[in-house]
Amino acid sequence: MIHPQLATMLVYLLTDIIATPAELRRALRHTCDQTFNVISVDGDTSTNDTVLLLASGASRIPLSNVRKEFETALLDVCRSLAEQIVADGEGVQHVIRLQIEQARNREEALQVARTIAHSLLVKTAWAGADPNWGRILAAVGRSGVRVDPKKVSVTIGDQTVCRGAMARKFDERRAHEELSKAECRVGVRLGRGKASLEFLTTDLTAEYVRINADYST
Amino acid sequence: MIHPQLATMLVYLLTDIIATPAELRRALRHTCDQTFNVISVDGDTSTNDTVLLLASGASRIPLSNVRKEFETALLDVCRSLAEQIVADGEGVQHVIRLQIEQARNREEALQVARTIAHSLLVKTAWAGADPNWGRILAAVGRSGVRVDPKKVSVTIGDQTVCRGAMARKFDERRAHEELSKAECRVGVRLGRGKASLEFLTTDLTAEYVRINADYST
Repeated sequence: MIHPQLATMLVYLLTDIIATPAELRRALRHTCDQTFNVISVDGDTSTNDTVLLLASGASRIPLSNVRKEFETALLDVCRSLAEQIVADGEGVQHVIRLQIEQARNREEALQVARTIAHSLLVKTAWAGADPNWGRILAAVGRSGVRVDPKKVSVTIGDQTVCRGAMARKFDERRAHEELSKAECRVGVRLGRGKASLEFLTTDLTAEYVRINADYST
Repeated sequence: MIHPQLATMLVYLLTDIIATPAELRRALRHTCDQTFNVISVDGDTSTNDTVLLLASGASRIPLSNVRKEFETALLDVCRSLAEQIVADGEGVQHVIRLQIEQARNREEALQVARTIAHSLLVKTAWAGADPNWGRILAAVGRSGVRVDPKKVSVTIGDQTVCRGAMARKFDERRAHEELSKAECRVGVRLGRGKASLEFLTTDLTAEYVRINADYST
């Protein structure tokens, strides 16, 4: 049950910087959009998720003096936590680093990423380390974003496996090896614009089902 | 991969009635909304789904003479086919007859039904015949429909298990027995209006994952 906005996740971030609530809120919201809000294990959310950022001021350094360093550090910490949450998902064998590129804007990149990340067919193919780009393409097609199939391409690791919605010759063994790693790279180019997004998700295994079917209320 | 609008499903309906394409289109669209478009196994759709209705006219009876009988027969046939498709889903143990009531309109009833039907946590609870109404309520809550929790109730079989978003005392053994059947009834009342909808869906089993993870491209 991890699909922030937000899942069962309690995150407490502490800093000794001097900052106003408004400054912290702005920094945290921006960081969450790049970390906790672009991960998903199973698409289910929880009702008690929290990300808190508290500043004591004990360092006597105002945030405005070190804004860049502070925001970089905040992003690093949140990114690490977000990655750990995904890797720790129920029954997860592979973490998928899903790169959506050439979207018209961030919203549609997110819409495509979520549709792929929540497709049971895509997630089960990943569980089998199967370079099945057809399932990815089908998810893109039903995402609601009006893509032109002739402009869509899919990559697995460093290989383009589909271009213009057509199969490309590729080394299947190497694609299978990429998808057998603990962390795999899958890319989708939409050919619509310049927005891109990285989304972290997982495969769906029989172990996930066992954990959640056997857990009794 | 069954989630019409539409999944890999080729349906051919033949009649010997006399009818215009417009008459047939109207009757079929109306029927599909009540049958093929309110079922889902895994939320994934396919690119080559078809429902065709062909009329030869050989009976020499115009549709307009027997409209009611024709539409009833068409609905019966399509409903039976839709139910068979769901029951035949990959790894399915239980078919869930999900009744959404007291929605403001059909659209929001559908939105709630789909969110519940696509929740991996709900589907895996069903696989375990677990009367976990909290997962159902969480899905309702994130469906996008602005429900007032105080007005929501959940039933399993003929028992109300949750009312006003609070647990009700219920016979757990009997609820477990209902969810152990091949076909189970689950109801959600939203307390918003008078629209209702029946949606047919399934549990999610480890067998589903095995079938779709082991199937190689």
